[in-house]
Amino acid sequence: MSVDDNKKALVLFSGGLDSTTTLAIALAKGFAVTALTINYQQRHNYELVASKKIISNYSNIKHIIFNIDLSLIGGSALTDKDIDVPTTKTSGIPITYVPARNTIFLSIAASYAEKLNISNIFMGVNAIDYSGYPDCRPEFITAFEKMINLGTKTGVEGLSLKIVTPLIKMKKSEIIKVGTDLNVDYSQTVSCYSLSDTGEACGKCDSCMFRKKGFIDANINDPTIYKKSTKI
Amino acid sequence: MSVDDNKKALVLFSGGLDSTTTLAIALAKGFAVTALTINYQQRHNYELVASKKIISNYSNIKHIIFNIDLSLIGGSALTDKDIDVPTTKTSGIPITYVPARNTIFLSIAASYAEKLNISNIFMGVNAIDYSGYPDCRPEFITAFEKMINLGTKTGVEGLSLKIVTPLIKMKKSEIIKVGTDLNVDYSQTVSCYSLSDTGEACGKCDSCMFRKKGFIDANINDPTIYKKSTKI
Repeated sequence: MSVDDNKKALVLFSGGLDSTTTLAIALAKGFAVTALTINYQQRHNYELVASKKIISNYSNIKHIIFNIDLSLIGGSALTDKDIDVPTTKTSGIPITYVPARNTIFLSIAASYAEKLNISNIFMGVNAIDYSGYPDCRPEFITAFEKMINLGTKTGVEGLSLKIVTPLIKMKKSEIIKVGTDLNVDYSQTVSCYSLSDTGEACGKCDSCMFRKKGFIDANINDPTIYKKSTKI
Repeated sequence: MSVDDNKKALVLFSGGLDSTTTLAIALAKGFAVTALTINYQQRHNYELVASKKIISNYSNIKHIIFNIDLSLIGGSALTDKDIDVPTTKTSGIPITYVPARNTIFLSIAASYAEKLNISNIFMGVNAIDYSGYPDCRPEFITAFEKMINLGTKTGVEGLSLKIVTPLIKMKKSEIIKVGTDLNVDYSQTVSCYSLSDTGEACGKCDSCMFRKKGFIDANINDPTIYKKSTKI
């Protein structure tokens, strides 16, 4: 593998706060970036609009959008419109968990990485200020990396695939500080699970709560547009 | 988890010789079976026709067909029509390898298994009479099982997902003998990588070669219909 190949990265990119920061980190580290957005028929499909808008800021990123309809499987408030997004904390893994979502996303990313001869897959998972999803934790990422190198031609031939997760142990406020230093425009990013069609955040879901607290703790102005009815 | 849940199986089912035998084994073991066929825009899409025909033999199997377009990724003779299926042996992993295919398939299966409260995922991978694909080997399956139990709600809550691979260490002839004892009608199954639109096998590709030799070694009549131009 040439040095050039080692400096190529595939970034799983949803248009959210975490993956946009991850994208900025990969670019800052000098990687040639391909962004992979997975349109899984999620409830908050304004994400797709946001992801395209954010990528259009950069002239040097190839953007791939891959469609997979996880609403056919369902089992989550994010993929089944008959299940409401909760606005209060519950114990255990919340109903916004999408069965095996990050395993599916990383598998598709690994397939693209093999095809495109990319050895670094960046993913903005975080296991500190998060909803407790099992597939955001370091032990899952480590096990995925081991598995994928046993299950791919790339791995067997000794050119290992690396799953790079720069945010995994950072607080949300730290992520926001790092991104701000890298000139991320957070007004373009979306986090809300119940976004309106025009991209306004609900301000109440788990994801909004972590985001709001992150900006407060970072002492950085929160550019998020919340629905007018939301008291913040 | 109730006893009933433990006796539910999701079988990854392509309509091929191996997965049809695996289906018969799961049924013979008393599992309530859901068959999952993944239509990945493979070259040999007669597989889909065959899978429906085989399932129609059974009154007690739920059949799910899930679409994912891996031809958008390509990188394989099975998903890129510009790459010919080889008819001679080459060294190393052949060009019919589809990047990360079984990882993607098992990930989708795991997502369905969680939604449907199924703990056993059957897959007809084989690491004896096979083309050397890394994602057919026991070490990959073991690593996948470990990873998926770290990355899913099911696993974290202690109701583990099991990847069951009854054929993994069997010769093709042994698989055919087991299936024949279980009344599998192999005339309905397809193995060829270059099937004609009407389901005739080429007789030359890797998959045809393993299948032909399997029937010969098992001393069982081969019901496969080969193209007339093929010398067998």
